[in-house]
Amino acid sequence: MKKFFYPRSVAVVGVSENPVNLGRGIILNMLQAGYQGKIYPVGPKGGRVYGLPILPHIRELPEPVDLAAILTPARFVPQVVEDCGALGIDRVVVESGGFAELGEQGQALQDEIALLIERYGLRLIGPNGLGVVNMEVGLCLPFSQMTPMPRRGNISIISQSGGVAMHLSAWMTREGLGLNKFVSLGNKLNVAENEVLAYLLEDPGTQAVYLYLEGLEDGRGLLETARRARKPVYLQLPNVGEETAAISYSHTASLASDDQVVEAACRQAGIIRVKSQYEFLVAAKLTGQPPVTGDNLVVLSRSGGEAVLAAYACREWGFRLPPLAPRLADFLMESSRSKIIKPTNPVDLGDIFDFSVYSRVMAELCQDPEVHAVLLNYGPVYDPEREDARRMARHLVKQAREADKPLAVCICATLEEEEFFREELSFPVFHFPGEAIRALAISRFFARRPRLPAEKKRPRLSRDKIAMLLSQQTSHGFLPLNAALSLVTYLGIPVVGWQTAGSRDETLIAAGNLGYPVCLKLAAPSLIHKTEAGAVILDLYSPGDVSAAFARLEKVAHQTLPQGEVWEVVVMTQVQGGEEVILGARRDRNFGPVLVFGAGGIWTETLEDVALRVAPVTREEALDMILETKIGRILQGVRGRPPADLDSLCRALTTLSQLMVEFPRVQEVDLNPVRVFPGSKGILTLDARIRVGQGVENQTAGAGGNQAPEEINNTS
Amino acid sequence: MKKFFYPRSVAVVGVSENPVNLGRGIILNMLQAGYQGKIYPVGPKGGRVYGLPILPHIRELPEPVDLAAILTPARFVPQVVEDCGALGIDRVVVESGGFAELGEQGQALQDEIALLIERYGLRLIGPNGLGVVNMEVGLCLPFSQMTPMPRRGNISIISQSGGVAMHLSAWMTREGLGLNKFVSLGNKLNVAENEVLAYLLEDPGTQAVYLYLEGLEDGRGLLETARRARKPVYLQLPNVGEETAAISYSHTASLASDDQVVEAACRQAGIIRVKSQYEFLVAAKLTGQPPVTGDNLVVLSRSGGEAVLAAYACREWGFRLPPLAPRLADFLMESSRSKIIKPTNPVDLGDIFDFSVYSRVMAELCQDPEVHAVLLNYGPVYDPEREDARRMARHLVKQAREADKPLAVCICATLEEEEFFREELSFPVFHFPGEAIRALAISRFFARRPRLPAEKKRPRLSRDKIAMLLSQQTSHGFLPLNAALSLVTYLGIPVVGWQTAGSRDETLIAAGNLGYPVCLKLAAPSLIHKTEAGAVILDLYSPGDVSAAFARLEKVAHQTLPQGEVWEVVVMTQVQGGEEVILGARRDRNFGPVLVFGAGGIWTETLEDVALRVAPVTREEALDMILETKIGRILQGVRGRPPADLDSLCRALTTLSQLMVEFPRVQEVDLNPVRVFPGSKGILTLDARIRVGQGVENQTAGAGGNQAPEEINNTS
Repeated sequence: MKKFFYPRSVAVVGVSENPVNLGRGIILNMLQAGYQGKIYPVGPKGGRVYGLPILPHIRELPEPVDLAAILTPARFVPQVVEDCGALGIDRVVVESGGFAELGEQGQALQDEIALLIERYGLRLIGPNGLGVVNMEVGLCLPFSQMTPMPRRGNISIISQSGGVAMHLSAWMTREGLGLNKFVSLGNKLNVAENEVLAYLLEDPGTQAVYLYLEGLEDGRGLLETARRARKPVYLQLPNVGEETAAISYSHTASLASDDQVVEAACRQAGIIRVKSQYEFLVAAKLTGQPPVTGDNLVVLSRSGGEAVLAAYACREWGFRLPPLAPRLADFLMESSRSKIIKPTNPVDLGDIFDFSVYSRVMAELCQDPEVHAVLLNYGPVYDPEREDARRMARHLVKQAREADKPLAVCICATLEEEEFFREELSFPVFHFPGEAIRALAISRFFARRPRLPAEKKRPRLSRDKIAMLLSQQTSHGFLPLNAALSLVTYLGIPVVGWQTAGSRDETLIAAGNLGYPVCLKLAAPSLIHKTEAGAVILDLYSPGDVSAAFARLEKVAHQTLPQGEVWEVVVMTQVQGGEEVILGARRDRNFGPVLVFGAGGIWTETLEDVALRVAPVTREEALDMILETKIGRILQGVRGRPPADLDSLCRALTTLSQLMVEFPRVQEVDLNPVRVFPGSKGILTLDARIRVGQGVENQTAGAGGNQAPEEINNTS
Repeated sequence: MKKFFYPRSVAVVGVSENPVNLGRGIILNMLQAGYQGKIYPVGPKGGRVYGLPILPHIRELPEPVDLAAILTPARFVPQVVEDCGALGIDRVVVESGGFAELGEQGQALQDEIALLIERYGLRLIGPNGLGVVNMEVGLCLPFSQMTPMPRRGNISIISQSGGVAMHLSAWMTREGLGLNKFVSLGNKLNVAENEVLAYLLEDPGTQAVYLYLEGLEDGRGLLETARRARKPVYLQLPNVGEETAAISYSHTASLASDDQVVEAACRQAGIIRVKSQYEFLVAAKLTGQPPVTGDNLVVLSRSGGEAVLAAYACREWGFRLPPLAPRLADFLMESSRSKIIKPTNPVDLGDIFDFSVYSRVMAELCQDPEVHAVLLNYGPVYDPEREDARRMARHLVKQAREADKPLAVCICATLEEEEFFREELSFPVFHFPGEAIRALAISRFFARRPRLPAEKKRPRLSRDKIAMLLSQQTSHGFLPLNAALSLVTYLGIPVVGWQTAGSRDETLIAAGNLGYPVCLKLAAPSLIHKTEAGAVILDLYSPGDVSAAFARLEKVAHQTLPQGEVWEVVVMTQVQGGEEVILGARRDRNFGPVLVFGAGGIWTETLEDVALRVAPVTREEALDMILETKIGRILQGVRGRPPADLDSLCRALTTLSQLMVEFPRVQEVDLNPVRVFPGSKGILTLDARIRVGQGVENQTAGAGGNQAPEEINNTS
């Protein structure tokens, strides 16, 4: 990667004297950014551009350059890439469009380039991107004009869309945020986001990375890389597909939509997911400052109203405004001219015009380890104050920097002062107190991100039994209920007493064996939502009840199942007590196996009270997951109720997690309801739906093998 | 009000030649705003200011001015107000601080002014505010410099904090939003928000009103006024007190915190509640455009990435992007140069450089009643396009205005174009697609705001019985359980079978009367949370069970009740089936009686699945309220379950609502759990907590009589 960012010489292929030639834009950007290396414009018609001679062919370069940027029509690109390879130029940026994004013909051209990359061992960024920027050395390859030229700073951008990245970097400049490096990935033929991210996380000039992606190359890889980061990573990922819910067959799928999985995965990896550029611009204003490690803020304000707004935002974002230290409170009382100032927090300094007071206050706050960050609502009100105020501002910023204390500055009333902070102090400022508090909260999220779990103890599965069971399922789709329940038993997750029966008599015998009361469920491959179909009958206290229920199920089978479909009846012990939860798992197209825990039974769909995690999970992660939900907090014991058996629940979750990791053929698991009993009385699975993919011979290994629901075939 | 905004002459009292005199700022603002009426500076030292002579005393005015603005030290203000009164000047603005906001001495000064207002029949804005601005006539009374001078436009501001309003109006100018009128209320001694709001809602120059308030003069009055509004009303109300939850004694109080009540009240009245100035600035960019009446958007975009962002935001805010009308789709296909454009929505027009195409597309969209709004992601990419693009932009804006079609414009990449829209087209623009979609969603909220209910049919209460019961409660605090259950019965809300008992034998007789199974509850005035105290015993199937349970309750009484407190046991039929809900009510300090409906029993606190409404509510509002919750949607019937008796539930809610309206002494009602049964099988109240205030003799009438929890005295 380094050679992409720090080339000593660059050839730009596709330049001409024609004023509408796009390649000229690259040359102009490079010159305006102050690139100090050698620039070689190349184009068949020759001539001069911005004072530089245009070489008619790349072969005429006086040296093998470190980097070639190509912006010729798509059909010429393979030849230019080949020339680069032959000349030993091994870093190539292709900005031309007209490849895979335009359908078949473009795809063929792109495949050609892929072969050349292989043959010559090249690294290539693009095609169909805006290339690379490195403000440290004035490297600036986009052909669109960068007006204004970005401010040099400490934030780096990785973006799939060139347009979004250009727009964002213009806004960064306007907001006082500096750019360090910028990569527009385009079609990601060779270099993709994870490699660039890994480089930038080690890059000394980069203190935060923003990713704009419309699809992930390798979601699990991204998580692994981000989990190790010591710098904030922001991710904007808008294109997470249509809601899975609309086309889902199980609760798990509808509870774990693509978007919710992205959300959970980001939290798990400490990635700051932003939903808009605005959110990023707000959060990024604290880049380079130490993270906010606690909840205690002090707000200094010239405006009473803005202090109220800050306090309100603190409550929204979970910050405290503790009373000031006594020494500081006393000092403020003494300093107040009219002695009517109350030394509360927020500190409303409206009455104090002596700006040296602020410095003294700031010094005290900087030294106080119980103050985790300071918000200054800044704004001189009268022109005569301006110069003093600016001197003070300069000093306060210096104090905070020296003491390594997070400081957020919000400009009130006099918007010109924003400019002063940005340009003179290189200090981005907030427009409203709520924004400052939000940014501090995001910084705190980063400071408290989950640590990498220590070596994971994985539960041992009865691999052979499970593999045998799966091998008996020759087609994909949902397992029959008895197979599903057996699989759950093999996992060591307790299942309520059950037996299958094919006739009225068998049903009665089974009920007798299990003991009353029982319930009956109709089981058939095409029957997914049993309750809705009237295929579950509860509260059967006697053989008479069971006979009648069997007759009803027989009728349901005739009325709702496809002609000739084989069905049977599952007889189950009816269990009293406990709370109902759902344990689920599915494969996400970006992040692979995902676990779901939440409220079960009739509550599942309506409450949407669920927690998600990318598998595998440790026991602690499982417990975290449980307690993230409302049902989890109820299970923990509320209002005098005894706590439920969370131990057994954690064990079930880690085992389910391991199943998904070890058996990629399992696509989706839905244990719902699972009853959780008090104390150490365990859990009981009352129903299970498990969907498997194609048998081993067709199976794609690893995490990605998620099947689209359209492919489900339930005629097994 | 009109005379405050359109005075033909203004006296400014408190002006001198001294350069640090604050009154000079008013004169300067008036001159710079181009006020055409007469301005008379007044100050004892005389002299001249900005070319105008300073009159030494207000008595020397050549005419009784329409309006006097006062900015003298606080101690002189009463005399000046008196002089105004004596001279027949009946509109006064007091900008001086130093009154009630500074404690006792200031309060005394303020009280003096209050008497003068009464004596002379004056109207007064302030004290301690920044006065009045009316950009229509160049009236500009703030003493702080308005730099830049606000842009004249169609938005009016009512603000308690002068600082927040000045800051906001500076931002409005920066964002291309125009100010019409501005009132800084200060201490609201005479004129308060509701009167100004009512005026502005009828004011032809005002098309939207923003209120910044830190406390409400009269919340119910605000709701009534806002409910009649035909213009958007925005409310920012940060100071809603500490969370009531922390100090609450009942579930209802903790479920209906002050902030949640504000939220519910605003929704009910169609007020757009904003939590930050940013939110307002985003939403206000559509001011003057017709409201968005449906969910169908069309997005036109030059950037593929920004189109993806718009689509993502549409999903977040519940907008649809329906396919284009066939004629439009065909036209786009024909217009595409490379014939590879897909006429989908969002329309990615990256390939189409012929801007006349946009006009044609816009014309089609403007005519299509199924398109409820259009979002244009605008941004010429190359300098040579700029002029053509601007011509096109001018035309598109004109088309939308003529067709009365909501149009949001978002500038991509080239930020200079924002300036063009703001200054040349007087058209505020969005910075990111997500902001535009959010603003369209807020406009849709306004379009769909609840209509004023038709004449309300109020339920009839058994007033006499209720009054009798309350009159027997001599002190305030929670009613004993039996009184509470009786009150519920008087309301016509069904209560489960119950009897009180003072001894083991009475308990057994009661159980025999009611029929087994029963449950026992200990009832004593100081016992609020019975379950936690172990004072509720369920599942008693036999006299033996009941005896043992009575003994346990006796023990609980001895252990937990204050010595000598009288207790008894309530025996209740134990009910099977149904779902548990909570019906509650309390008095909010801003909005008076508030109703609560939500999930009951063990779920209440953890789920926080509640809906709130300011009472009274109609039957339809009650139903709305129920269906707003998750438990409500479950009760409606999910997954094959029969719908519950929502009729009975609505009846109970409207009755409870009426109780709160007619009996101000009732402070808080908590019916939890109430069981709701299927079909028309009704509801049953299983437990009730009711808190009353002081008896009639001490009672403050009306909605405001909410008692702070500290005053609760449970020794009754």
